[in-house]
Amino acid sequence: MNLPFTLDADTVWYAIGDGSLDKSAHKLDDYPRIIILVDENTHHHCLPVLHKLVPGLENCDVILVSSGEKNKNIAQSSYIWNELTRLKAGRDHLLLNLGGGVITDSGGFAAATFKRGMRFLNIPTTLLGMVDAAIGGKTGVDFHDFKNQVGLFVDPVGVIIEPLFLKTLDQLQWQSGFSEVLKYALIMDKDLWGKVQGKHFSEIEDWGTIITKASRDKIDIVRFDAAERGVRKNLNFGHTVGHALESYFLRTHNETTHGMAIAAGMICEAWISAKIFEFDAAHLVEIVTMIDKNFERFTFDESKIPLIIELMHQDKKMRGNKLLFSLLRRLGKATHDVEVSPHLIEDSLRYYFKGEV
Amino acid sequence: MNLPFTLDADTVWYAIGDGSLDKSAHKLDDYPRIIILVDENTHHHCLPVLHKLVPGLENCDVILVSSGEKNKNIAQSSYIWNELTRLKAGRDHLLLNLGGGVITDSGGFAAATFKRGMRFLNIPTTLLGMVDAAIGGKTGVDFHDFKNQVGLFVDPVGVIIEPLFLKTLDQLQWQSGFSEVLKYALIMDKDLWGKVQGKHFSEIEDWGTIITKASRDKIDIVRFDAAERGVRKNLNFGHTVGHALESYFLRTHNETTHGMAIAAGMICEAWISAKIFEFDAAHLVEIVTMIDKNFERFTFDESKIPLIIELMHQDKKMRGNKLLFSLLRRLGKATHDVEVSPHLIEDSLRYYFKGEV
Repeated sequence: MNLPFTLDADTVWYAIGDGSLDKSAHKLDDYPRIIILVDENTHHHCLPVLHKLVPGLENCDVILVSSGEKNKNIAQSSYIWNELTRLKAGRDHLLLNLGGGVITDSGGFAAATFKRGMRFLNIPTTLLGMVDAAIGGKTGVDFHDFKNQVGLFVDPVGVIIEPLFLKTLDQLQWQSGFSEVLKYALIMDKDLWGKVQGKHFSEIEDWGTIITKASRDKIDIVRFDAAERGVRKNLNFGHTVGHALESYFLRTHNETTHGMAIAAGMICEAWISAKIFEFDAAHLVEIVTMIDKNFERFTFDESKIPLIIELMHQDKKMRGNKLLFSLLRRLGKATHDVEVSPHLIEDSLRYYFKGEV
Repeated sequence: MNLPFTLDADTVWYAIGDGSLDKSAHKLDDYPRIIILVDENTHHHCLPVLHKLVPGLENCDVILVSSGEKNKNIAQSSYIWNELTRLKAGRDHLLLNLGGGVITDSGGFAAATFKRGMRFLNIPTTLLGMVDAAIGGKTGVDFHDFKNQVGLFVDPVGVIIEPLFLKTLDQLQWQSGFSEVLKYALIMDKDLWGKVQGKHFSEIEDWGTIITKASRDKIDIVRFDAAERGVRKNLNFGHTVGHALESYFLRTHNETTHGMAIAAGMICEAWISAKIFEFDAAHLVEIVTMIDKNFERFTFDESKIPLIIELMHQDKKMRGNKLLFSLLRRLGKATHDVEVSPHLIEDSLRYYFKGEV
């Protein structure tokens, strides 16, 4: 067990590690009223744990929404606004988002836009939420087929990363979050790479350390560049292709996980990186092998490649007509705003679909 | 004619007065692409004027929405997001809101939440827009019966207040905006009160001066307290009762104007002010007489008073269970966060409905 630590970073406080909920529960006393947002999974598995650890929350009103990326949309936001209205929530109240990325993204957006700004707190309950979605103030919902097309940069008042909640995760959720752990390792943390490299995620035992390292990587970046003007863009490695694939699967109603899409995106973008920055071929093999060890590749018709490229043009990271990527200079070091030609992107998708390492 | 002036205030620039559009048009060159938001009225009356004054805007894409408070809702936001998506708008593009308060509120909200933040510029075309809605970063839409229940504090990049556009206004719109002019006079600007007092709005000739003074009053306040922690709350004079009346009429599908509701609210709240701060009875008469000269009173059943009080409890200015008002200490001076008992509010509504001065 690693000791929990807290960090009062500018406008957000973080409590991270085993026991962090217990250690930070007093912070909840700052709010005259707390309303808890859950989905059916966290309602069943996590809310009882929260109530047990923080008995004062037992009498709080609860808003229940449906889980899953396919429900992260404006209809869900409207439902939350409606419930907040019905519960007579005020600007000085706190929405406590208890769940994975869908809950923290959607709850953050709904709270921040309710009465022009109600505060919210994130308690992520999935690996993906703990190392990524709950940190850094990106909130939003999908709109038609476009991921996070409607949303805001707005920080929670605090984030409590309590690994205890992970006990309720299924394998698919572990896998999904693991894609982001690999991303931090690849873009900025060779030490983290060393801890995971060669392993299947199910073989990892010391998740406390992995989560602490990965979440600190993200916190360090977003503190430095909250508005994504520079270095924060490095976090988009794997996400330009990955989001387009995720949008494609949203559109075709084949639900995938965020992690599977990002894993595929990282293979394509590592391949592009190797082409552009000419890094060691052995490193590309090492990266792709590690991703393949943890994620099965998607298979689909090559004729869909133009559609996927088209979806990339709706990416929020577009500038003018250019597709700008965040790529690896080498293993453990990323750079951003690299223009990549559609031709090279197509080739990377062909490389991926052929299943080559 | 008064000379236009420009003000680079922190993060927002303002160009105010006759000729201000001409003088500030070069600022539009900063954006790689501009998309213009209009309603059917400004599409017909104002867009040709804008095109004539700034020919470079003739080729910009235009998004057209329906006018009127009853259309300022999430469905309208969704329509705007949809159009921005279809037009492949990017975060670095600019949404130019050309219209009254509905356009600047709704367009500002849609832009600020599109791809987590597209920039927008306000060119108000109504008196209400020029002296109030377009300034200060309050954006949002109504939700069910609640005014601006969903929205954000977010500043436009700039505001161009060009009185030329007022030529297209009808009497109801002049009247609606005039309520806010009276508010500035009452809460902070005795000089402005001196310029309008005793007049019907149709008798005023020098609108350039009135608009410049009133918009400067608002800018001075929001620069000092953008987040509405203190003095900005003074701008809510007339609005606690006024918004509840407006919500009531939205609910009963009797459309009213914002100005008529605020005028009624100012009568009630001036009466409450006089009760609490014991200010000169002659001043209360002067205020109420002036409002009555410009606005007919609503008539409706006294039995609706409890419902109106209930609607006040959804007010964004509520804290805990208390109704906090912004009131007049005297004519030309306001204060905020004054707790008023429901009993006194009811009495003020009875005073209003009896038609007493």
